[in-house]
Amino acid sequence: MRGAILYGPRDVRFEERADPKIIRSTDAIIRISVTCVCGSDLWPYRGIQMTTEPTPMGHEYCGVVEEVGSAVTSIKPGQFVIGSFFASDNTCPNCQAGYQSSCQHKELVGGGQAPLLRVPLADGTLVATPGVPPDDLIPSLLALSDVMGTGWFAADAANVKPGKSVAVVGDGAVGLLGVLSAKQMGAGRIIGMSRHESRQKLAREFGATDIVTERGDEGVARIKELTDGIGADAVLECVGTQESMMQAIRSTRPGGSVGYVGVPHGVELKGEELFFTHVRLHGGPAPVRRFLPELIDLVWNGKINPGRVFDLTLPLDQVAEGYRAMDERRAIKTLLRP
Amino acid sequence: MRGAILYGPRDVRFEERADPKIIRSTDAIIRISVTCVCGSDLWPYRGIQMTTEPTPMGHEYCGVVEEVGSAVTSIKPGQFVIGSFFASDNTCPNCQAGYQSSCQHKELVGGGQAPLLRVPLADGTLVATPGVPPDDLIPSLLALSDVMGTGWFAADAANVKPGKSVAVVGDGAVGLLGVLSAKQMGAGRIIGMSRHESRQKLAREFGATDIVTERGDEGVARIKELTDGIGADAVLECVGTQESMMQAIRSTRPGGSVGYVGVPHGVELKGEELFFTHVRLHGGPAPVRRFLPELIDLVWNGKINPGRVFDLTLPLDQVAEGYRAMDERRAIKTLLRP
Repeated sequence: MRGAILYGPRDVRFEERADPKIIRSTDAIIRISVTCVCGSDLWPYRGIQMTTEPTPMGHEYCGVVEEVGSAVTSIKPGQFVIGSFFASDNTCPNCQAGYQSSCQHKELVGGGQAPLLRVPLADGTLVATPGVPPDDLIPSLLALSDVMGTGWFAADAANVKPGKSVAVVGDGAVGLLGVLSAKQMGAGRIIGMSRHESRQKLAREFGATDIVTERGDEGVARIKELTDGIGADAVLECVGTQESMMQAIRSTRPGGSVGYVGVPHGVELKGEELFFTHVRLHGGPAPVRRFLPELIDLVWNGKINPGRVFDLTLPLDQVAEGYRAMDERRAIKTLLRP
Repeated sequence: MRGAILYGPRDVRFEERADPKIIRSTDAIIRISVTCVCGSDLWPYRGIQMTTEPTPMGHEYCGVVEEVGSAVTSIKPGQFVIGSFFASDNTCPNCQAGYQSSCQHKELVGGGQAPLLRVPLADGTLVATPGVPPDDLIPSLLALSDVMGTGWFAADAANVKPGKSVAVVGDGAVGLLGVLSAKQMGAGRIIGMSRHESRQKLAREFGATDIVTERGDEGVARIKELTDGIGADAVLECVGTQESMMQAIRSTRPGGSVGYVGVPHGVELKGEELFFTHVRLHGGPAPVRRFLPELIDLVWNGKINPGRVFDLTLPLDQVAEGYRAMDERRAIKTLLRP
């Protein structure tokens, strides 16, 4: 088969790779229906995170089970399934506590920008939809594999509750879906931070009541103006830089919460400043598996439509253009069809 | 009157100072019944925090109201009162949210190691006991002014709940009272971290089920051994150094909580490590005012006896020895009688 391989900064190639095979008896092989490019794929794509050897790319996936290992009991060939970027056994104490992305046996799933994918720990990782989904639901189901689950976790980690004020730092797919999540959880005021017109528009459609275009201290001041001078109850950090993290922390009221899901790159928090903010901090790699059943239900019943973040659809063999469009911010998120 | 003044590292003097007076109409003057030396007083005492000019010391206090300003309505002369180290109006949005130590009009209370003390924002800051307390309750009531309120906040911030596992980093008065708080909140296993026999003993009496003497990576490993290999549900950080903070974070299970109340000195948290721990972080200067009514009730009814952390009692004029004894760890906490 042919799949996406990253060779180095801005060098993604669509090349022949061996078909994945069952390696352990708990594996499944799935035939990818659609896959996509993740904002976090841009870190190695841009060379901010080093790539030491040619690396098969892609960790967002949904599709039909092709084959399962001999120890797989609940997942069956023919099912349409979705899984997270972290495979998890869903039985260890961390999984039982709802932190499947800290599973004691977790494994990164990789190489999903291809027609076939091996998923370890299939029973713990994959969740089947109620039936074969209609085509128009498939992009939204794909979004659950990472960005929607991650935006949802950001809102959950930030303790979004009905009527509360929420600010979202980051207007990538995760930030936009953080807006959607906050809306779904009943937030009152939802402030999106964005300078890009098309993203502002989608943020408003997803439920943002206000848009703030300022950044840094000015952005913080604007959030405070909109929240009784004290800051938002909940702030979702969906970028992962020092600037975005401090903007999130400083935009939160004392006793309020920051849910941070942007993978930190070079972020350092000064203990003393953090101490006097009185902010609650929670985040990390989203335990998407925890939320999959609920989110599949919401998509299946037409309550949410997270697939709207895909504003560019390409055949998989044009994956390199998919990366370029996101890198240049011409696209929010690229959907790829094998 | 004479009171304690810090001139520089290890130089506390008991000297003549002007009697405090009502400066603003919202002030009260209280006659100190007992006061004490705080672990946080040791930072400037040791020169780790700079003292630029002679500074009246002391921020833990209880006593009888002597005089109130013209705008004070609820606090009356003759009442026995307790207040926090941060004066607060108890009406601003941050106070209403329970974060009185982030009050929009907060002021530090200082100079309490003296017979008389001016307390700003008296109505918002001071809480009266149900009557004049018997002598044997007074040390425990004094403890509520800071260390007990701070230990309680650490447990509250760390989401201690009935049956949960708790670890406490720090065996000073705050750490020991964190143990007492966790016990009172119904924690199951309570692990105290201490190398000092007398403090271990008090920790056990306050409710610790286990004592860990190891520190750093070994300490973390011992906590994990005691908590199903994953870490404690709740960890109370009651020191404020880089080592203690990292020990607390690494001893917490994914999804568990660190409540940190040790004033950070030189602490820097790496975003990437924090991200992958999945830990919840909350803390800061304790909003003692929030807890005072409940804690006064617990002391008044003999449910808790936090005054047991005072293992040295001196007349106020020997305040310098009170500091020395704590600095050299000969005493957990020094009570001073004017």
